[in-house]
Amino acid sequence: MKILGIDPGIGRMGYGVTEKNRGKETFVAAGLLETPAGLPHADRLLMLARELENIIGRHKPDVVAIESIFFAKNAKTALEVAQARGVAIFLCKKAGLAIEEYTPLQVKIALTGYGRAEKTQVAAMAKKLLAIPADLTHDDTLDALALCITSAAFRLP
Amino acid sequence: MKILGIDPGIGRMGYGVTEKNRGKETFVAAGLLETPAGLPHADRLLMLARELENIIGRHKPDVVAIESIFFAKNAKTALEVAQARGVAIFLCKKAGLAIEEYTPLQVKIALTGYGRAEKTQVAAMAKKLLAIPADLTHDDTLDALALCITSAAFRLP
Repeated sequence: MKILGIDPGIGRMGYGVTEKNRGKETFVAAGLLETPAGLPHADRLLMLARELENIIGRHKPDVVAIESIFFAKNAKTALEVAQARGVAIFLCKKAGLAIEEYTPLQVKIALTGYGRAEKTQVAAMAKKLLAIPADLTHDDTLDALALCITSAAFRLP
Repeated sequence: MKILGIDPGIGRMGYGVTEKNRGKETFVAAGLLETPAGLPHADRLLMLARELENIIGRHKPDVVAIESIFFAKNAKTALEVAQARGVAIFLCKKAGLAIEEYTPLQVKIALTGYGRAEKTQVAAMAKKLLAIPADLTHDDTLDALALCITSAAFRLP
């Protein structure tokens, strides 16, 4: 069972891939898909889509864990993220992946056992649980890997 | 020059196709793409995407006119619509269409010359300008055709 975690965004989309190895969820790959701010957003969506299709093609995950739709303070940002999220879900569904959605609360509980954990605590636990390479430090990448761990934690053994 | 108009939505997506014929923008096709409310939203996005791909393949439009991202009263609805809109824009961009976005204000001005026109006035003008078949009465279908007219009106002759 290979899990793809996605932290959706239009400027930066974090992704992570994990897999169970000897009973333990293990790091496979992760990174950040970035699009230039100056580009029209249709081009940005197309760029993200092509990169995501490459990742799906390369890693062939069985399931995608993506952050639930949320209500950001900034409505414009939320709508931009929602568009990118729609494209990501569509591509995953088209590729036959099972779609799982988790709220930030579920991620916090799965990683730290504490619903009010700080982002830094969640990131620290993700690094500890998965032995993530030290150069992968971006929040969105770590969030994507945290979603992989959440998916594994919520799955029945 | 063939124009595809899209009024995005997750439960109902209106579409219209028009083309210039003897100097006059003319009705080609229009309709409503619908998805069942009970279906998971990933499946609904996939359904909409497949229908939209069929429409693009059948009519081969040069440009898509889509309503600008908006801030609805209902934030959850707005985010659902934004996801469907993201998929629609991605598919149009991937198919090589030029992407045009219009605000409801631009549509009102293009059709009625009046920025505070009612939806019914806009729909009535769309019917008059395009000789839309009488059985096409759904708001979302008429809105999509109004977007086609707007695109034609804003284009330099």
